[in-house]
Formats: sequence, structure tokens, C-alpha cells
Amino acid sequence: MLTRLIYTSRVSPGTDSRAVRDILAVSQRNNDERGLTGALLFNSKYFLQWLEGGRSAVNERFQIISMDKRHYEAEILDYVAISHRTFDGWSMGYAGEGAMNRELLFKYSKTSDFNPYSLSAESAAELIQCLADKSLTLEPN
Amino acid sequence: MLTRLIYTSRVSPGTDSRAVRDILAVSQRNNDERGLTGALLFNSKYFLQWLEGGRSAVNERFQIISMDKRHYEAEILDYVAISHRTFDGWSMGYAGEGAMNRELLFKYSKTSDFNPYSLSAESAAELIQCLADKSLTLEPN
Amino acid sequence: MLTRLIYTSRVSPGTDSRAVRDILAVSQRNNDERGLTGALLFNSKYFLQWLEGGRSAVNERFQIISMDKRHYEAEILDYVAISHRTFDGWSMGYAGEGAMNRELLFKYSKTSDFNPYSLSAESAAELIQCLADKSLTLEPN
Amino acid sequence: MLTRLIYTSRVSPGTDSRAVRDILAVSQRNNDERGLTGALLFNSKYFLQWLEGGRSAVNERFQIISMDKRHYEAEILDYVAISHRTFDGWSMGYAGEGAMNRELLFKYSKTSDFNPYSLSAESAAELIQCLADKSLTLEPN
Amino acid sequence: MLTRLIYTSRVSPGTDSRAVRDILAVSQRNNDERGLTGALLFNSKYFLQWLEGGRSAVNERFQIISMDKRHYEAEILDYVAISHRTFDGWSMGYAGEGAMNRELLFKYSKTSDFNPYSLSAESAAELIQCLADKSLTLEPN
Amino acid sequence: MLTRLIYTSRVSPGTDSRAVRDILAVSQRNNDERGLTGALLFNSKYFLQWLEGGRSAVNERFQIISMDKRHYEAEILDYVAISHRTFDGWSMGYAGEGAMNRELLFKYSKTSDFNPYSLSAESAAELIQCLADKSLTLEPN
Amino acid sequence: MLTRLIYTSRVSPGTDSRAVRDILAVSQRNNDERGLTGALLFNSKYFLQWLEGGRSAVNERFQIISMDKRHYEAEILDYVAISHRTFDGWSMGYAGEGAMNRELLFKYSKTSDFNPYSLSAESAAELIQCLADKSLTLEPN
Amino acid sequence: MLTRLIYTSRVSPGTDSRAVRDILAVSQRNNDERGLTGALLFNSKYFLQWLEGGRSAVNERFQIISMDKRHYEAEILDYVAISHRTFDGWSMGYAGEGAMNRELLFKYSKTSDFNPYSLSAESAAELIQCLADKSLTLEPN
Amino acid sequence: MLTRLIYTSRVSPGTDSRAVRDILAVSQRNNDERGLTGALLFNSKYFLQWLEGGRSAVNERFQIISMDKRHYEAEILDYVAISHRTFDGWSMGYAGEGAMNRELLFKYSKTSDFNPYSLSAESAAELIQCLADKSLTLEPN
Amino acid sequence: MLTRLIYTSRVSPGTDSRAVRDILAVSQRNNDERGLTGALLFNSKYFLQWLEGGRSAVNERFQIISMDKRHYEAEILDYVAISHRTFDGWSMGYAGEGAMNRELLFKYSKTSDFNPYSLSAESAAELIQCLADKSLTLEPN
Repeated sequence: MLTRLIYTSRVSPGTDSRAVRDILAVSQRNNDERGLTGALLFNSKYFLQWLEGGRSAVNERFQIISMDKRHYEAEILDYVAISHRTFDGWSMGYAGEGAMNRELLFKYSKTSDFNPYSLSAESAAELIQCLADKSLTLEPN
Repeated sequence: MLTRLIYTSRVSPGTDSRAVRDILAVSQRNNDERGLTGALLFNSKYFLQWLEGGRSAVNERFQIISMDKRHYEAEILDYVAISHRTFDGWSMGYAGEGAMNRELLFKYSKTSDFNPYSLSAESAAELIQCLADKSLTLEPN
Repeated sequence: MLTRLIYTSRVSPGTDSRAVRDILAVSQRNNDERGLTGALLFNSKYFLQWLEGGRSAVNERFQIISMDKRHYEAEILDYVAISHRTFDGWSMGYAGEGAMNRELLFKYSKTSDFNPYSLSAESAAELIQCLADKSLTLEPN
Repeated sequence: MLTRLIYTSRVSPGTDSRAVRDILAVSQRNNDERGLTGALLFNSKYFLQWLEGGRSAVNERFQIISMDKRHYEAEILDYVAISHRTFDGWSMGYAGEGAMNRELLFKYSKTSDFNPYSLSAESAAELIQCLADKSLTLEPN
Repeated sequence: MLTRLIYTSRVSPGTDSRAVRDILAVSQRNNDERGLTGALLFNSKYFLQWLEGGRSAVNERFQIISMDKRHYEAEILDYVAISHRTFDGWSMGYAGEGAMNRELLFKYSKTSDFNPYSLSAESAAELIQCLADKSLTLEPN
Repeated sequence: MLTRLIYTSRVSPGTDSRAVRDILAVSQRNNDERGLTGALLFNSKYFLQWLEGGRSAVNERFQIISMDKRHYEAEILDYVAISHRTFDGWSMGYAGEGAMNRELLFKYSKTSDFNPYSLSAESAAELIQCLADKSLTLEPN
Repeated sequence: MLTRLIYTSRVSPGTDSRAVRDILAVSQRNNDERGLTGALLFNSKYFLQWLEGGRSAVNERFQIISMDKRHYEAEILDYVAISHRTFDGWSMGYAGEGAMNRELLFKYSKTSDFNPYSLSAESAAELIQCLADKSLTLEPN
Repeated sequence: MLTRLIYTSRVSPGTDSRAVRDILAVSQRNNDERGLTGALLFNSKYFLQWLEGGRSAVNERFQIISMDKRHYEAEILDYVAISHRTFDGWSMGYAGEGAMNRELLFKYSKTSDFNPYSLSAESAAELIQCLADKSLTLEPN
Repeated sequence: MLTRLIYTSRVSPGTDSRAVRDILAVSQRNNDERGLTGALLFNSKYFLQWLEGGRSAVNERFQIISMDKRHYEAEILDYVAISHRTFDGWSMGYAGEGAMNRELLFKYSKTSDFNPYSLSAESAAELIQCLADKSLTLEPN
Repeated sequence: MLTRLIYTSRVSPGTDSRAVRDILAVSQRNNDERGLTGALLFNSKYFLQWLEGGRSAVNERFQIISMDKRHYEAEILDYVAISHRTFDGWSMGYAGEGAMNRELLFKYSKTSDFNPYSLSAESAAELIQCLADKSLTLEPN
């Protein structure tokens, strides 16, 4: 059973974009062996991640992620069985509040401060797909 | 929870397009802080406004609006939870009964005198989106 | 509440296309004041009319029409609440059984003699919209 | 094609319950020959009638009714094709604003003054069926 | 058009159950003239009110209510067109957090502290109908 | 936003029913403060737990549970927004493979060995509600 | 593929109830071999028959019936694939316009003269099932 | 009520394409008077005909067709009320098993021998529309 | 994934009810280990079997069954994923054409000779559940 | 009744692409006579086959296939009645895990090792149609 899990979490103090790059490199290597794909978005405050793969692998991975000290208060936004994957590898990018993403993030936000904890499952999935369609960059602007 | 509120009201005697411009300037500034977007249409008789944002902010703003002496008899036409915003900033314009809008207003009216108080929720939302798609001007013609 | 009423009726002996032109001129003037729009089709045997506007205005107008001696046996084919008008003014034309309309009329008829009294509400509305899309002429061919 | 037509109208000055009884007696005799059944409700201000039968018979009867001087401003509330009759004969009764009906009428009214002109098609049909289920009397109370 | 509006608000310091009783007495008298019915629930912290009637009357009443100093931060939870009333008069009661209501309130709450501001439109309507089905008392227990 | 999370996990060697009783006692105390309710089922091999409450509280609790050494390989079976709670407190019981539950467990199993890891979200929710309807006991039989 | 065919036809002059009894006796014998079941209703003017069985058998039988001189103008009212039979043998009866059936027949008729040629497929099937539920007799009353 | 009847039948020994041409000429003349349109397909073994028009005319014509000695075992595949005609005149053609039609016929057949008696109502209607879209010829190839 | 497979087959010459009893005894023993449940119906001509369990077990068992010489021409009538089992053990019985079952079998048959090869998936499942609800006996009557 | 059966199976040791070519040649010849079409995909580990045609022919063929020693553990993934064929002949190809197919296979897999036994009916049908749209080759790359 293929499954999708989307969670958000808060970036721990001291986690910078280099740390995120390391996270991604490790993730990508580990995830490949487990058949996991998805998208990892982040800015200075939040992570927002889409994980898809076998149900057990997704759960196992999410538990390891939950315990990583570089973020905290992981909260699942969406968790469903899926018929096929949306991502065929890994997308990752700085979903900052710069000009590039501001308009899109605001479309789903109560205020100009984007807060992924207020997203519904439907909005979270829609937002990640929109962001992933744009060319993502690793550096803050 | 993002929410949309559409109301109509009657223009008070003495409220002219300059007053409306002032209203809009103040609104825009206040609304930005509260994460409110939408559209404000008016003519010599009526206001028709679409407010969208967080549910509390929309309610708080609507109560302030209700007490503004420049209009009266505010009546809510539509109030629903929404998954995303329709407007990313503020649209505003003179929705007068000049040639430009006459055909569109009449499409939703019982007679050639446009009266927004007779609009259903569905018609009100549809009409505002149609008007906002056209280029709006601040001055009566 | 905007409402649509479609009726058919039989042309009285002595009612010719000039009489119909008069009817239309008067109707158009009266209807404008009452916010009524629609389409009036006729041939040597039948009238077929689509009236739309406020529910009271549509009823009032239909009762005056019913009593006009230039036609008889008016029968309502369709009567429904509508969210917006289909016609923004008045369409009118000779829906004769000439080559132009023959194929379209036959599509909704049991035999080659077109008889609007056998139309269902759905078919009547569809037929008038099809005929109105074609350029209508006032004279029989 | 069996058809249902519901209309409301205003009682003309001078039309009392005896006149209504006469109306009903004539109606019942005429309607029987034409295969018409239904319900006629009235009070000191309004008639509310449900007519069902063949489409032509219903239209013919409604036109005669429209011209009766004992009421005016007849307005159609509902007009639909039906698969079978709801009434197998004639129901009639004083739908007055006495204690008996007050609660039911108010359920469909904006204010304590019942006004059938504000009824939607769905509400009109529902209200008549509710009133007809109660035992009706011819005299005001 | 019959309309239902449900709002919640916070009880102002100094508003006790006697004050609420006064509110209700005045409301009931005023509302009767305007054709308004519904339910008013309150406890030491919140009001939760269901208003139903004509759309204009509901709006006019809600604006007066909004300005009453005995509560503040009124927020609309539900606002829809309805086909008929649910209440035929006025229900009112102390929806306190005593044993009687505790289980029901908790069914719709995130924590044991009931907070009507977190209710969705659907939950708010459902909760009020559940509470109104129970016999309500005016006094806190 | 009320949320339901159902997970299954494997009982660690050395975890007996006394340990489970301790777990439950602690859980119940902690959960009460956080507004969490649900059901905890277990046998000699598996835990199967239904957690419901605010989305953040459910996530926070699930993360603490995930790290408890008395079970391992926690896997989420169901995670959805809910409109109201199903449980008003805590149900708990030995869902062993004794005669009492054998038939019910087998209804959802591929073989006579019950394995909750093969349950779909729908089946997991249905099974727990069925088991909770029966009177649960804390001791294996 | 099991199939249902409902037709109506006009009784030929000289066909009396004895003739109908003969028809039924022969039909029943022939139909048994072909796996046909159903209901045959008649009065002094019309036959109304429900035939169900294999598609080929139903067609073959209907063609023989069509050529029988004891009726004419057979017209199919309903013809559909069915998942199972409604009748497990043969029902037959005088569906006359006596008191017994009058009310039921009128429910589906434009006038007090019952005419099955005006029935829709849905009404025909519904009417036959209603009549078959009543105890049928072979003789006119 | 416009109606569509699709039937198939077996070609009698001695019926050749000239005979079919005669059939079609006569049909077309007779059908015109009765308001019948449709499509007649045939090959060396089968006829497959789509008849549409008034319900009585379709039935009357089908009964005459049933008795024609040039085919036998007519079996109705589809019979439904329609809102408008699909064909505005007559289509006719040799639906032989030559290269032209082989692929299309096979799409709806169990084996390479096309047998219209195994068609469902839905497949029969779909197949005739597909064949009629191709240019049909009267002669076998 | 729980799966249901229904097949029918022809009884080989020489297979009597004792043989069937042996089949069932072996089946039951083998099936228990594999987690298979269902119903086995038979008469002098046909087997009709409902198998439910894990998808692999159902397939493995069906292949062994297919090769058993005591029947031939096994044909799958229904094969679907199911959310839970219908049978909690094994039902088995003589589904003969005696008086007991005749009416039920005929309900799904074209003729009085019952032939399960003509059953659709839906009819097959419905028929087995109906037969299983009756008390089944192992001996022909 | 046209039927589709999709199964997967494991390739027996010693079965190479030449053997598969032989299988296909024989299949194609045998299948033509029986009216069977479809697609046969394989790699070094698995067969995945779509069979469509008459229900009896599909079953008969699947039983012969099941007993072929060149593969084992055949498991049906999908079995449904269809209204028309998807393939008009035979598609066949090496669905290997080379670059060409890797991305597509992974889209439906839990891990980078493709395993058709984990496919749902819906996914299996979708995957085969995707693969068949690409040009297939008989040789591994």
C-alpha cells in the first residue's frame, strides 16, 4: 500500500541552510534504499515535507525524522493511501518568504506571516505541488 | 480557517467618491496588518464588498465597517469557509450603472435598477468576480 | 427571484407578420419598464416565447399575454427560478418551417410537422437557445 | 404528461367564505370533467391552490382562474411535470391564521404575517401538503 | 429568504444570569415584532446564539447585538439560507459546564475547556440543536 | 480541528498486562489534561490504539508514545479530521485471541493469526468500534 | 440476460373475458416451457402485460402476441435488462374501472378515462406492481 | 415522446443487397410520412437497425418490419425515450466483415465472428454511431 | 488484501454426494490452515463456490481446485477485493432443484433449468447469500 | 459478456526471452481462434498479462496458462466485465527494469524493486496501458 505523509515542523535554533543540505543528502541516500520520494521545503522557521512510499517505510522514516534535533513539534497534516507516486525522486527547496513565494504562501495563510500549522490536509498537498512546480533554489534570497 | 464575507450596504448622503478613496486607503493599510484581501465596489447608491482572511479578522473588520457612518443597513450576502483566497490584494472600483457595467449588472437584476440586496450568495460572489475581471476605475463616468 | 417562463400558443386567424411586429414593438417598450427580456419566435401557426425577469413581472406579463386575442391556447412549457438571465435584451424571429430551421425543428419533433405543444420543458429551452443563436429574420421566406 | 401548478393570489374585497364555497362547488364540477384534482386553501387575504392533471387541462383551468374577479395578482409558485397525482380528489379549507395553523404558517414566513408570495416552489408544495394532512374546515374561527 | 445566523461572543465582566434574563426578555419582545426565533445559550464565559428569520431582520438584529456592551468579540460561525425555521419560538438556557452538559460540550471540544470559537459551522448548528433538545434552565448549578 | 489517529505497534518482550495497566493509568492522567480520548486494545503481540482530540495534542502524544520502549514499530493506520469525538473517555481492554474476540478479529484477517499491520484505515476504525462495543476486560483469558 | 418487456394494446371487438381466459391458459403453458413469467391485466378496452425472461424468449413471445387478432396496436412501454424476476409465476386479472381499481388507475391518468398508451415506462411498471399486489379477479364487475 | 428502438435480425436466404436496396427505398418513403429516421446496417448474415421517432410510429413500423419475410428472429437490443433525434435522415450501409469494419466490429465481439445478438443496449447504440460516422457503401467489397 | 472469488463448474460423471462430502472435509482442513472461508453449493450438475481470504491464498486454492478431476470447466463469476469476510467458517449444501430451492434458483434463471454459467457477478453473490441463509442439507431430496 | 483478466506470475528458472517468444507465437495462434486479445509483459522475474475476450474463453485460456511450467504462482490482479476491448490484437514486450521503464514501474512500487504482486486491480490495469503505449521490444537491454 503506497502512502503519503505530509508534516510540518519548527526549525531548531542553529539549523541553517547548510544543515538542511546535509539533511537532504543523508535523506536522499537513506530514502533511496527504502523507496521513499517526496519534497522537502523549508525557510528560516519551518519545514514542510511530503513523504511517499510503502506504508511501513513512510512510518519508519517519519519516526526517525521526529527525533531529529534540528527541528521540533512535528505535526502530521495529511496521511492517505495513494494509488501512485506524485514525485519520482526528491524535490527540495527554500520556500522562503521572498518575493518569489510570497504570493503563493499568502494564498493559503490567514496573515502575511505564513504558518504551515494552520494548513488543512487538502491545502498542504496543494501548496507543496504548486511550490514544487516552480524551480526551487537551496539558498535564501 | 480562511473565510469569505460578502455584504452590501447603502451609501449615506454626502459620501462621494473622494470619501470612498479615503475609506479604501485606510482599509488597505488596516487590512494589510490583519491579512485581509478582497474587492470593494460602489456606485452612487450601494457598496458591495468581498472580504477574505482569517475568520476572526473578517468578523472584527466587518463589525468596524458596520459602524461606519458613511454607509448603513449593511447586510451579509455570503459567508463561507474557503480553502484559498481569490484576491491576492485589493481590488476596488466604481461599479456604476454606466454603459460599461450596465449589461453585467442587469444580468443579475429584476429590473434595470440594480439592487444588490436582492442578490443570492451565489450570484453575489459570481457578480463580484465578473466585475473584478474588468478594469475598474475610481471615478464615476 | 429571477424566473423563466416559456409558453407556446396558437396564432389566431388574421394575425400576420405585421401584427407580430406590432406586438413586439409594444412588448419591448412595456417589458423594458418591467425588466423583462427573452425571445419571441413564431411561424404561421405558433408562438413560442421565453420570458425572464422578476417572478411577479413575469406572471403579470404572462397574464396580459394570455388575454391577447392574436393568439389562443397559451400553454406553459417551462417555469423555473434562474440564477441569471440568458438574454440581455429581446430576440425575435420568424421560426418558420423553411429550409433554414427545418432540420433543427425536426430534431425535436415526432413528425415533419413541428408542434411545440409536444415539447418538454428541457427541449423547449434547448430549442429556443439553438434558434436564437442563428440570425433571425422577421419575414417568412 | 401529468403536471402540477401551484399559485397564490389576493382575495378581492367582498369575497367571503360563502363565495369561496360557491367557487369550490363550481370548480369541483368543472374539474371532474377535465381530470383535475388538488387543494384550495384560503384565508381572508390569500388563495393558495395546488392544481394537478394533464398539462393542457391545468393550463386551460389556470387561465380561467386568472380572470376570475374574486381574486387578483395570481402568481405561479411551482410548475412541474409529475409522475403521479398527490391528491385523488379535492381538498379545501380555511387556512386561516387562527391557532390551528399559526405555527405551521410561521415556519415558512419571515414574520408573523403569513405572505404566500414569498414562498419558494419547494416551500409552497411542502406547506400545502402539511396543511392538507390536517382536517380542514370551511369557516373562519 | 429565510436565513440562519449563529454567532458566539465573550461575556463581559459583570454580566450575570440576571442580566442575561433581561437581555432575553427584551430580545423576545423585539424579536417577535421582527419575526425572529432561535436559541440563546450562555455560560459564565460565552454566548452562543442561533438567530433565524428574514435575511434583513437577522442582519439588523445582529448589528444591534454586536454593539451591546454585555458581550464582545462576536464572531459568526454559520450563516445560510434556510427553507424553514427550526425553532418556533425562543429557547434559552444556561449551557454551563456542569455535569449536565459537560459530556456534550466535550464531544465538540479540543480540551475539557469548552471554547465555541473553535467550532465549525456544521458543529455549531449540531451542538445547539442537541442542547436545545435537553430541558434548559436559567440558573447556573 | 479535532483529529483521529489510529496506530498499531508490536509489544516489546517483557511487557505484560500489568505494564499495560500502568501505561493506561499514566496515559489517562496525561491525556485528560490534553483533552485526549480513545481506546487502547492489546494482546500478547500487538497494541492497537485510537487517539482523538486536537490535532496538535494528538501529534504530541503520538510522538511520546512512539518512543516508549514497551512497544516498537508503531505504524499509523488512520489519520483524519473528525467533526466530533466517538469516545467520551477511555476504553481499554485485552483484545486477545481467545474465544471472545476470535470471530471478530478473523473477520478482518487473512489468516487465523490476527495481524493489525495488514488493516486498512477503514477496517481499523471499524474493528476498534466493534471491539469497544463489547465489554472489555484487562486480563488475558 | 434477463429482460422485462411491458406493452399495452387495444382489445379487438368480440374479445370477451372467456377469450382472455383461453389466452391465459395457452400462454401459461407455452410460457412455462420458455421460462416466461409476468402479469396480464385487461379490461374491456385494453391489455397491459409484463413479460420477463430470457431476452430471446421475451422477443419471440412478443412477436407472436403482436400478431394475435384478439388485440391490436401493441405498443411497448418499457424494455430493460433486469437482474432478477419480479414475478415467480403468472398473475392475471381484470383491471377494470370498477370501484376497486378506479382510484389507483386515476393516480396515473390525465382524466377519469384510463388510457395506458399515455404511461411512461416508470409509471407502467409501478402501476402493474400495485395492481398485482391486490387480489385480482377474472370477471368484470 | 421521442423513442429509439434498436433491433437485430437474421437475413433470410435469398435476400441480397438489391433486395436490401428495395427495402431501404420503401422504408425511406414510408418512414418520411411517419417522421422516422435512423440507420440500417446489414451484411450477409444480419440486419442491425436504429429507428427513432414518435413512440407509436416506432412501434407500428417495428411490427411491420417484424413480419417482413426477408429477415427473421428480430430481437430488440435497445428501447428508450430520447430527448432529441441523433439522425436527421437515413443512414444505410453494408456493415460487412471486410477490412473496413473488421476492427470496429471485433471491438464489441467475443470472437472474430461478429454476432449482434450478443450486444448489450449500450454497445449496440455505440457501435451504430461509430459505423455511421464512417462513409458507408451499399455494395459488399 | 482480503479477496472474494466465486466460480462455477460442471460436476464430472461419477462424482456423487459422498465424493462431495470428501471434497468438503479435505477442503475444510486445508482451508483452515490458509485462512479460507466461504460456501460450497452443488447439485447433480454444477458446483458453485464462494472463496474468501487473502488474495494469494484464494488464488493458490483456486488453482488446485481447477485441476481436480471431479469437476471441469471452472469459470470465475466474481473476483473482488473485500473489506471483511461474509462467512466466518464454511457453509455447504445441496443446492438441488427440489422444491426447496426451485423458486429461488428460477428467480435468477432464463428457464426452469438452472445454469450458473449465465450468472453475472452481482447475481452470483446475491444467490449464494440467499441460499446460505436457508438451512442447507448434504443429501439430495 | 466480454471480460478482462489481469494476472501476474513468477518466471520459472530456465525461461529466457526465446522461450517467451515461443510462448507468444503459440498464444497468438491459439488466441486468435478463441477471440482473445491483450498484452503480455515480462522481465527476468515476472510475467504480467492482460487477457480480454468472451468470459468462457478467458477462463479456459487462463487455466491452460496456469499449468504452464515456464511460470508459477499465477495470481489474478483484476477480473471484470468490460463493454469493449482495449487491445485489437496482441501487444508484447520486455518490461524490464532498464532505464526505459524504470521510472514508470517505480511510480507503482513500494521500492525500486518492482513487484507486480503488490499491485491493486486499478494500478495493474493502469500500468499495463502505460507500458503498452510505449514501443515495446522483445530483447532485454
